[in-house]
Amino acid sequence: MDGPNRGTNRNQEQTAKDETMDRQPIVQKVYLVGAGPGDPELLTVRALRLLQAADVLVYDNLVSPAILDCVRPEAQRVFVGKRAGRHTLPQEEINALLVELGQAGGVVVRLKGGDPYIFGRGGEEAEALAAAGIPFAVVPGITAACGMAASQGIPLTHRDHAQSCLFVTGHLKDGALLLDWEALARPRQTVVFYMGVSTLPTICRELVAHGLPADTPAAVVRNATLPDAERLVGTLASLPALAAAAELAPPALLVVGEVAALAERLAP
Amino acid sequence: MDGPNRGTNRNQEQTAKDETMDRQPIVQKVYLVGAGPGDPELLTVRALRLLQAADVLVYDNLVSPAILDCVRPEAQRVFVGKRAGRHTLPQEEINALLVELGQAGGVVVRLKGGDPYIFGRGGEEAEALAAAGIPFAVVPGITAACGMAASQGIPLTHRDHAQSCLFVTGHLKDGALLLDWEALARPRQTVVFYMGVSTLPTICRELVAHGLPADTPAAVVRNATLPDAERLVGTLASLPALAAAAELAPPALLVVGEVAALAERLAP
Ligand SMILES: C[S@@+](CC[C@H](N)C(=O)[O-])C[C@H]1O[C@@H](n2cnc3c(N)ncnc32)[C@H](O)[C@@H]1O
Ligand SMILES: C[S@@+](CC[C@H](N)C(=O)[O-])C[C@H]1O[C@@H](n2cnc3c(N)ncnc32)[C@H](O)[C@@H]1O
Repeated sequence: MDGPNRGTNRNQEQTAKDETMDRQPIVQKVYLVGAGPGDPELLTVRALRLLQAADVLVYDNLVSPAILDCVRPEAQRVFVGKRAGRHTLPQEEINALLVELGQAGGVVVRLKGGDPYIFGRGGEEAEALAAAGIPFAVVPGITAACGMAASQGIPLTHRDHAQSCLFVTGHLKDGALLLDWEALARPRQTVVFYMGVSTLPTICRELVAHGLPADTPAAVVRNATLPDAERLVGTLASLPALAAAAELAPPALLVVGEVAALAERLAP
Repeated sequence: MDGPNRGTNRNQEQTAKDETMDRQPIVQKVYLVGAGPGDPELLTVRALRLLQAADVLVYDNLVSPAILDCVRPEAQRVFVGKRAGRHTLPQEEINALLVELGQAGGVVVRLKGGDPYIFGRGGEEAEALAAAGIPFAVVPGITAACGMAASQGIPLTHRDHAQSCLFVTGHLKDGALLLDWEALARPRQTVVFYMGVSTLPTICRELVAHGLPADTPAAVVRNATLPDAERLVGTLASLPALAAAAELAPPALLVVGEVAALAERLAP
């Protein structure tokens, strides 16, 4: 990194590009930025400006290549995700890295898939920065559930069908899926499972065991908002076999609730 | 409206402005577009392009003035919200209007606060358009909960505190608040109430009556992401009096769960 004032200069350039909009200045701090579900046009205007102003970019596999193309070429790129034969950097190391980069100065952008505060461990990164006294800001992003809903015709809270919407993770903790099944198996609600591909059969089975009708509509959507998006629609009874036959792999969301049945009509 | 090809011409102009990004064409159809929580920089890139390309804009009070400033000046503007002494257009009339505008042609943008499919009645508008055979697309937006969370330091799903996040409406239906209190009063989850300002005292009381500890952290945030944002943090026991003393008015979100207590530390 080459000095404390670079961020500010570029910033003025950016601002000149479009006078129609109130803009907040980009300053030297750490920005935890939501990248949205994948389609680069679903970046927020603020996220795009930050990518174009970043001195340092910290990112992982959850960010699509088309979005990385928006980052200014001179930015230093730090990959903290999984690589063939290597694990993701442990979260504590990512936290420490962000603190270190924040101390060094410049515009540091930590790009997170979707929204930083929805299953993104952005909360932990924010806490580490706050504890170290590093100035930071969080920029929300379109969370995968909302990107999926809009593009796949699944109105999460359609009032004829749901009065609430619940986001939950289907990820195993210590090898177990310890979810509050009673809260999940409620009528008139939409449940979206993040990271639920490998546990999909268990989820569908438990929901039925806890009282949801086996013919409750359910859908699974992979790579929502990207050109190769895939959708499977069925019921709690039929979806596991459909997903197995399609050899569905992550990243995908599982949506359970009556609204899943609207997909074929609203986004044929 | 003055002819079928205007959208396409402007579209090429737009595309020329920024070559770094894959862009989908803007065509003549009805777009249900999420405007995000209020800060114009939280529009998505796609939403901003659509505002700059719209022939007709249909909007209501949920969209902030700074965002309306992004709409191209030549666009026909149709206001369907509440005006002094007059009610909002009934939803059926809005649906019929969108169908009519869609039939007439041009780029029709129906702008919705936040995300169209989170308590926005976007599902009903999409159904009306689908039933009438009008081409349409839905563009997701940052829902108020995510905008609030990022700007106010409330990581909705921080894993030390919550394993799920539930969005629900605190709006009265036929004068009653018929919510599934048992599902809402769970440990280790974050609940965000939309439209819950007037029912805040009832909500806090019922959650305690259904088992949540009275000292469960709770916060209410008004005008999140806007310059005049206001936040009150307390507990289920203390928040109603705090909100009354502050004469808190809509639009605001109520957040219940341990993560609400992080606000003062993560966004002082
Ligand atoms: C670690 S979580 C991060 C979620 C992210 N913070 C968000 O708000 O969307 C990763 C999971 O998000 C979901 N996901 C992210 N992008 C997706 C996409 N484009 N299509 C479907 N699911 C997606 C998948 O369930 C994936 O396993
Ligand atoms: C009819 S709902 C529409 C929600 C919208 N579709 C969304 O996704 O955010 C309107 C409610 O959203 C919440 N809301 C919208 N914008 C907000 C903001 N900037 N700050 C706080 N609450 C907001 C308030 O609870 C308001 O009563």
